[in-house]
This record gives sequence, structure tokens and C-alpha cells, in this order.
Amino acid sequence: MARVGVVGIGHSRFGIREDASLRELAFEAVRSCINDADVPLSDVQSMVVAIASDELSYALQPSAQVGDYIGFHPKPSFRAEAACASGSMAVRAGWMNIASGLADLVLVVGAEKMTEASTPDVTEVLGRAGDFLWEHPFGMTFPGYYAMIARAHMAKYGTTEEQLAAVAVKNHKYGALNPNAHMRKEITLEKAMSSFVVADPLKLFDCCLVSDGAAAILLASEAVAKKLRPDPVWLSGLGLGTGSLALAHREDLTSLEATVEAAGQAYRMAGIGPEDVDVAVVHDCFTIAEIVAYEDLGFCPRGEGGPLVEHGETCIGGRIPVNVDGGLKSKGHPVGATGVAMAVEIVKQLRGQAEEGRQVPQADVGLSHNVGGNGQHTAVHIFTRA
Amino acid sequence: MARVGVVGIGHSRFGIREDASLRELAFEAVRSCINDADVPLSDVQSMVVAIASDELSYALQPSAQVGDYIGFHPKPSFRAEAACASGSMAVRAGWMNIASGLADLVLVVGAEKMTEASTPDVTEVLGRAGDFLWEHPFGMTFPGYYAMIARAHMAKYGTTEEQLAAVAVKNHKYGALNPNAHMRKEITLEKAMSSFVVADPLKLFDCCLVSDGAAAILLASEAVAKKLRPDPVWLSGLGLGTGSLALAHREDLTSLEATVEAAGQAYRMAGIGPEDVDVAVVHDCFTIAEIVAYEDLGFCPRGEGGPLVEHGETCIGGRIPVNVDGGLKSKGHPVGATGVAMAVEIVKQLRGQAEEGRQVPQADVGLSHNVGGNGQHTAVHIFTRA
Repeated sequence: MARVGVVGIGHSRFGIREDASLRELAFEAVRSCINDADVPLSDVQSMVVAIASDELSYALQPSAQVGDYIGFHPKPSFRAEAACASGSMAVRAGWMNIASGLADLVLVVGAEKMTEASTPDVTEVLGRAGDFLWEHPFGMTFPGYYAMIARAHMAKYGTTEEQLAAVAVKNHKYGALNPNAHMRKEITLEKAMSSFVVADPLKLFDCCLVSDGAAAILLASEAVAKKLRPDPVWLSGLGLGTGSLALAHREDLTSLEATVEAAGQAYRMAGIGPEDVDVAVVHDCFTIAEIVAYEDLGFCPRGEGGPLVEHGETCIGGRIPVNVDGGLKSKGHPVGATGVAMAVEIVKQLRGQAEEGRQVPQADVGLSHNVGGNGQHTAVHIFTRA
Repeated sequence: MARVGVVGIGHSRFGIREDASLRELAFEAVRSCINDADVPLSDVQSMVVAIASDELSYALQPSAQVGDYIGFHPKPSFRAEAACASGSMAVRAGWMNIASGLADLVLVVGAEKMTEASTPDVTEVLGRAGDFLWEHPFGMTFPGYYAMIARAHMAKYGTTEEQLAAVAVKNHKYGALNPNAHMRKEITLEKAMSSFVVADPLKLFDCCLVSDGAAAILLASEAVAKKLRPDPVWLSGLGLGTGSLALAHREDLTSLEATVEAAGQAYRMAGIGPEDVDVAVVHDCFTIAEIVAYEDLGFCPRGEGGPLVEHGETCIGGRIPVNVDGGLKSKGHPVGATGVAMAVEIVKQLRGQAEEGRQVPQADVGLSHNVGGNGQHTAVHIFTRA
């Protein structure tokens, strides 16, 4: 199978970006990606853009804004979407674009502008990523969905609220060291535990941020990647799984079928197992989601995700460092950007370019895990140096 | 380059489908596609879904509905989008999925449910596919955009309102013979000319329909396609071009840069020219759009699109039969479905399976042309029998 390399990465600052529109955020990420790759935009042949919501961007065909603003016409581009996993769909489509032979150099951009809407409005729009016929109209939103998942995990495995909070403490610790993170401040376990309840047992600090932001990567065919730089990181494994629209249709709430499927595909394609992963970013839209991801990705046996984080095994120096960029929790979650930003972070780690205090030593294999909705779509991507 | 074949086609009835939801429309198309291919859905490895609008479907991640309803979990699927060209983005992504070696059998589904919203509301939402910062807020909608294109074409080339109406008369003539068409009735030139003005010079019968509907095709790698059926149609050329968001940024309104770019790519890839095309479906969202497409695709010299249709050269028996399925004008335009429905029609023509009176004799090479917005994205695909 054809090899596809990452030859450029770019990342806007995440946050409440009153200074930048959707297209300006995308431009910020594209410019830093193009500079990193040291390739003129005119050499790029094709583009895939991830934006999760038409409605939040008050546009139909929102990806056209990005092509227009960065001056990409008349070259090919289109939008890939799977709610909060949209960014990974664009990475996947970019990989296919090159591996199919259609192009040698493809730009993948993810962006979202969310903070112009109020938090309740955003929660309402995002809530429709789940079952909007039988669950959402009766009051379900994502904090509620993940609260049910947390309760199920606590009942089955004895996971504690302190273990959930430990995810937040870890991710804020690393996010404080990431200049692109939305909320750059450490928090204590006490602070997390005493924050107000959003959807019991999830408290404020169990929930990720609503952010504006963008990220971009430049993908290249093997021949072009090797010509462009001595150290391309290879996108060596791709997995994409899907799950039921309604949570009510799932037999077990303590695992996402889509993650298990996607991880299996990606590990097989890359020819590795979970024990080979040196660094991972996982979809911590809520703290319980990170714990479930540990188990679904095979980083620990079922039911041991809580203890894993509690004992520091997902910190740098532990068994498998996870979300040392701050995660969705502290770095932020501009939904369309997230999957691409995850790729940026893994490439940064594999190149050894992460900021002091959050660089995983000798990282040769990295994994990203990106969930759309509550597991209607999940992508797992594996990146390698060799 | 890898060859990708079409081994199944399916098409729902287009129209005001009060009897079916978005997911049910998609199911209708998928079922007929799977039956046509004579392959169980369980053999299909991956899916790409085109739905143009989150807002019209009142969902985020709307493609999850399709996977859920047809029982596709946990296999890969995602949404491809470029407004009214979404269907062709899904066809393109499906092709890449196979040509890249990720899968051998990929389902491509396009669907849209539009008639639950009022026509003014639909016009408003679709209007945001253009420039929603500087044009749409000041009153621009798509009839207005295409009226300006028509006026420019009339001024530069002397195109007449009768020539515009001739497109509608032709497309209604063929649409009347298509059991899947929304409006199965012939119209006279007099009726078209005397219908009320929507956006001068465009009258009611210059505008396509707002419809509900879905379409599906099944794509296969060369080896699998040859095993599955004796007569696969090959997707031999792919082109995708983009154009400015704002009409105000274009130097010339009488041509879509995105179409010219996409056609060039597709012809080069297929190794053919416009003179080799036996049958075409083009994006006649408004009658003027079909005339501009003739010229941009090279079916006639610049400025001769009006006379081409006036003299019957785009009817069966003429130089190049166009939209003999009724086109968007009479068959309907459920936006996400349209690009996939175009592929269905071309395959039907190349197989010789079109209904009596609208089958093009000895059609070996077919072309589809699908526009997103007013040329922000345009896809041209070429299908061949050999």
C-alpha cells in the first residue's frame, strides 16, 4: 500500500478568538503549516476541509470560505464531516487523495468558530449530533449522554469521581505548557471536585471547552515527502468505526463500539499493537470519555481506566502518556479543527518539537483517537517515524 | 492508476415525499442499489454519504442517520459536502477509497429532505452557499445570482429568453418519461415564456424544483467489479474545480471557472475530449446554467450554447444529448442526492437501461457535471464502458 507522509503542520491559538473569523482562523493554521513545510501554497494540488456545523458558521458549503480566503482557486477542495470527528475525516480523505494517486501534495484543514453562539445554543446544536428524533428532543445533550456513560462505568467497574477529576488535573497540567491551549492554567483535584455539577456525576471541570480554532497538516506521497524533508512522519494506520445514533440502542454504555472497530483497523494496517504506542491523544470531550478510550484502545484492561489515570500512568514517565497537549479539556475543542489538531500534536511529539515539560521522550509511534457525537463515528490514526 | 467500476445503482422517486424521512429516502436508494448489484450489504466495506445541509435535516452529523437506518455499523462511513455538488464529492471520495486500496466495495449515498421547509426558507438556506457576508445579507439568493449570469450571457452573446425556455421544454419532455422524476409533465415554450418572473429574466420554468430524494451507487475495485458483473461501467475521469465565494470577485459571469478546471482534469484523466461524450447530465439548477455548462464543457464554442439547445442539438438525435433524465429542472434537485443521481443516470444510459424515448442509442461515454453554489465547487465525472 502507498505510504503517505506528513510534511507540514500548523495550528492556530485555540480560545475565544474574538479577533478572528472562521476563515481567518483557517488562514492562521494554513500559513503556519505552509511555513513549516517550506512549500509554496501554489505547489499544493488539493485540499480537504473539516468544518462540523453549517449552522454555527451560518453558511452552506462552509469550506468554500477557506478556499476563497487562502487563495486556493481553482484547485480541488471539498468538506469532510462527522461532527466532532470531522477533522479526522479530512485527514482520512487527504490520505486517500494521495494514496489513490490523484495528487502528491494535499492540504488538510480543520476549523470551527463556536464562541459567537451562546454556550446553551452551542450545546443545543451539538446535541443534535446524537439521536435528534428520540433522545435530543426529550432533553438529551452531550453532558447528559456522557453522564450516563460515566454512571454505567462507575456501576460496573467502581470508577470514582476522583478518577474522573484526575483526567482533568492531568490535562490542565499539560495544557498550561501549550501556547496554543485555550485555558492555560493548572487545576487541583479539590478544585475539580468542588466545581458545580453540570450533569451528575460530571462537574464543570469534567467538561471540555467551547473554543474557536483551526489546524492544518500537509500530506505528501512517499517520493515527495522524502524530497521535502529528512524527517517526514508517516500516517501508517487508519481506522474508522461507526455506532448507533441512539444511546438507547447500545447494549453496553461502558465502551464505544466505534472505537474498538477503528482501533482494530488502524492497528492491523500499521502492523502494531497498543503496547507499541509511545504517545496518544484521545477524545476527552468529557473526562469519562478519556477513561473509556484507554480501555477501548487497549491501553489497559476493561475497567482499569480509572486506576490507570489515578496512578499517573498516562502522564509523561508513565506507561502511556495521553493528551499531553492539554486535550480537548484544556487545549479546547473547536470541533472541526480537533481531529487535525490531534494529528499536528502527534507529529510534533514524533519530531521532538513539543514544548518543554510536555515532550514525550523517544516517541516513535503516536496515536490519535477522535470521536464524532458519542461514538456515531470514531477515527483512530497511527503515526510512525520509520 | 487503479480502475474503479460501478456495479450497482439505486434511485428513489424524487418529489414532495411526505411519505418518507431523510433516512427512509436513503434506504429506498440503497435497497434498489444493493438489489441491482446483487451483493449483500454485509459485503460492502465502507460508505460515503452526501447530505448538503445540517440545517434542513435539523441534525448535526446527518450522515449517521443513514448508517444507523440501513444497519451499516460498525463499518466506516463519513459525509462529504460541497452544497449542491455534495453528491459528486461522495462519488469522488468513494473512488479514492477504492483506488487507495482501503476497500474493494464502497457504497456512495446521496440524500436530501427539503420540502419540510417552506420554499422561501429553503431559498434562504441555500442562498448561504454563496457569499453570505457581502452578497446574501444584501438580498442575494440563487435565482438572483443566476439571473445576473443570464443577463451577462444575453448581453455578451445575444442569448435569448426563448433559448433559456428551450432548455426547460427539452428537460420536461424527457422528465415526463422518467418514473423517478418529480414533475412528469411536458411544457410548451409558450407556457414557459408566460410563467411569472422569479428574478428577471428567469421565470418560474427557468428554475429547478425543490425536492426530496436519494440515490446510491456501489463502487468496486477492478477485480471485484469484473467478478460481480459482465458489464461494469468504469468511473474513468474525475475533475474538481473551485471558484470564488462572491460573484463580485469574478471577471466574467458568462462562464464558471470551476467547471472549466474540472472538465480539463476529467478529460485528461479519461484521455478523451468533449467530442467523445455520447451523453451528459449537467447542472441545470436554472436554464441558463445548462447553456453555460455546454460552453464550459466544450460541447460548443463560447456563446453558442443558446443556439445549440434552440436547434435541438442537445436532444436525442442531436450532437450531444443532455439531461435526458429530466435534469434538475424536471427530475428535481434534492441537493445532496443530485450528484449521485447523475452517476446513476449515466450508468443507466451506458448500460442501455433508460426508459423508452429517453435512451441515447449506443452510448459508450457519459459525463456528469455537478455545481455547488454558483460554482464555488464543480465536479465533472466521466464514465466509460470500456
